[in-house]
Amino acid sequence: MNEVLLMGPGPSPVSHRVRSAMARPLLGHLDPRFLEELDRLQDDLRVVFESSAALTFPISGTGSAAMETAVVTLCRPGRKVLVLSCGVFGERIAAMVRRYGADLTLESFPFGSPVDPEVARRRMQEVAPDVVAVVQAETSTGVRSDVDAIAALCKEYGADLIVDAVTSLGGLPVHADAWGAAIVYSGSQKCLGAPPGLGPITVRDGLAQSQGEARSWYFDLGLISQYLGSERLYHHTAPISMIFALAEALRDLREEGLPGRFARHRKASTALRAGLAVLGLESRVAAVDLLPSLTVVAPPGGLDEAELRKELLFAEGVEIAGGLGPWEGKAWRIGTMGESARLQPVLRTVASIGRVLARHGRAVAIPEAGNQAAKAWEETE
Amino acid sequence: MNEVLLMGPGPSPVSHRVRSAMARPLLGHLDPRFLEELDRLQDDLRVVFESSAALTFPISGTGSAAMETAVVTLCRPGRKVLVLSCGVFGERIAAMVRRYGADLTLESFPFGSPVDPEVARRRMQEVAPDVVAVVQAETSTGVRSDVDAIAALCKEYGADLIVDAVTSLGGLPVHADAWGAAIVYSGSQKCLGAPPGLGPITVRDGLAQSQGEARSWYFDLGLISQYLGSERLYHHTAPISMIFALAEALRDLREEGLPGRFARHRKASTALRAGLAVLGLESRVAAVDLLPSLTVVAPPGGLDEAELRKELLFAEGVEIAGGLGPWEGKAWRIGTMGESARLQPVLRTVASIGRVLARHGRAVAIPEAGNQAAKAWEETE
Repeated sequence: MNEVLLMGPGPSPVSHRVRSAMARPLLGHLDPRFLEELDRLQDDLRVVFESSAALTFPISGTGSAAMETAVVTLCRPGRKVLVLSCGVFGERIAAMVRRYGADLTLESFPFGSPVDPEVARRRMQEVAPDVVAVVQAETSTGVRSDVDAIAALCKEYGADLIVDAVTSLGGLPVHADAWGAAIVYSGSQKCLGAPPGLGPITVRDGLAQSQGEARSWYFDLGLISQYLGSERLYHHTAPISMIFALAEALRDLREEGLPGRFARHRKASTALRAGLAVLGLESRVAAVDLLPSLTVVAPPGGLDEAELRKELLFAEGVEIAGGLGPWEGKAWRIGTMGESARLQPVLRTVASIGRVLARHGRAVAIPEAGNQAAKAWEETE
Repeated sequence: MNEVLLMGPGPSPVSHRVRSAMARPLLGHLDPRFLEELDRLQDDLRVVFESSAALTFPISGTGSAAMETAVVTLCRPGRKVLVLSCGVFGERIAAMVRRYGADLTLESFPFGSPVDPEVARRRMQEVAPDVVAVVQAETSTGVRSDVDAIAALCKEYGADLIVDAVTSLGGLPVHADAWGAAIVYSGSQKCLGAPPGLGPITVRDGLAQSQGEARSWYFDLGLISQYLGSERLYHHTAPISMIFALAEALRDLREEGLPGRFARHRKASTALRAGLAVLGLESRVAAVDLLPSLTVVAPPGGLDEAELRKELLFAEGVEIAGGLGPWEGKAWRIGTMGESARLQPVLRTVASIGRVLARHGRAVAIPEAGNQAAKAWEETE
């Protein structure tokens, strides 16, 4: 089987170098050489999170496991939690908060819109939340919310801030320290360019220790910190091979540098949108709210969008995703993340979508779409 | 760095073939070709669990995550849960049950002894538990408990049975169907020969649906079953590369066959014990309670056991583990699991331990230890 070009909202393509790291012989989870590698990985994560926190590491589970770690740590019965949601992943946080029995206020903004900081301010005045949770890059809609503004409100009103950076970390700036965030988390399989299975997280110094025992044992940050700290107390067996992969992906990021990585995401998403526009596929998101890691367009009208995506996958070897929730059948979600945030995958995607549309009788200017994409790549800083 | 021979209680060595599977280009978690592979993996897991249950799959986390899944599914507030513990991992189940607010009765048997079914019967008569949890192969002591007997009691008294098969699955028979177990779980990094990071689990048909919403979202079997079932409803992004690895490891197991795999574990552990006995290292576990996957001996007296293990790791390239809990400093735990359940790794381990002891002035008959190990291998069925 030929390699599939993963242009969905994650998993993103993983480089040969990162995949090869997983083929390395294993080390034990208490081997000093493994622990050194884990230490370096933690340092690299601190750079990308812009965090100085000691407890910065990958949760042994996916991004949703990191989300649940944040919730189980902070959203306890009796605590007032305000979830500012503008899509499926904000709703997911709320669902978890509800399960763990905290006092939830869910403020939902319309699909395709970001969190409105003015509405957030009013709700914070009314609710006086202990904890506020927000998604920086909503994977279901491709919308960016203004975490700087929400973080400022949290400082003003004295609330602990949880930030979901699953589709942003490595793709656009995350400022864990500057935000004063309690917890910021992400996933390995998006802009970091590693396979799915780890949930990078950073936890403000002292926070884990101040919360006492969590409901969950597996996600108990107090217990986990004893393995990561100088005690090296066994908690659970670390997923060695996945950690090798993430370490390698972060080494790539360190060599490229954050500014270069961010620029590549901006260039790729701008190029993709320029190409898609020539094909008649317009963004569902206002220009001011666009993400550099994810483009969401309306699928071509009058055709079965799921069938088109299947044809794209099987005939062209390019995977993109459909819509979620209220946008099911009404959106195409196309990622430019990590290794897919490059000109060649963008051009291949635009051409492949063009060919599928042409086979269904649409008059599309495929070379022109490629030209516009390449031009936009060059012109974007 | 030369490859370390992993002879601890997991992670066990992973074959080149299984590691290479992780280097494969990724597929999306909703790609029909990935879902086919996942289906085959589930079939292979059913064989090794001896389970016909539809919900048989790998949890996206380590063995402890699978343990927590079992607990969060069955051990709810108001439920009476009897944990039959004979070591650290039994205690871990109890700690999780306590956190999730069930009505816990913990019956602890002495370190180095198995669960006593007669005591279990008395406790079941007194407590009338809704749920009973037991560890088949206790990784902290190397002791096997008689799950057949406990399962019979659960049928007699109408309790749901949770079995921890982390260090047994693939190494000795697990009878999920015959036991009528509610949930049996394991880890990928022991006798199955895959890297750590997945927690195989099998859940009796109908159980997940009958329990309603779990406290945990990430470990909610009802939600996960909608992804695994015909609906293919997205829950979380599956850890693709780890699933490739486990699928490959299970393919190896299918080719070898369960009887052959079990025999190899018996032969390897018997050989290891014969060799260690010549070196003066005696088992801490009675013959009748021995595991085929893990050997626990008393470390040599009068020497710093942690220093010896460090020397074994750095000078000989062989990793074994020390004791846990009350046996910290008082036990060496040596695994014969998956790829390490072969004659060559056993011989290398015996010779390496012999050389380390000789360097510390002990008179040890290294060739004789090897001979006895090889002889025991040949003589064991």
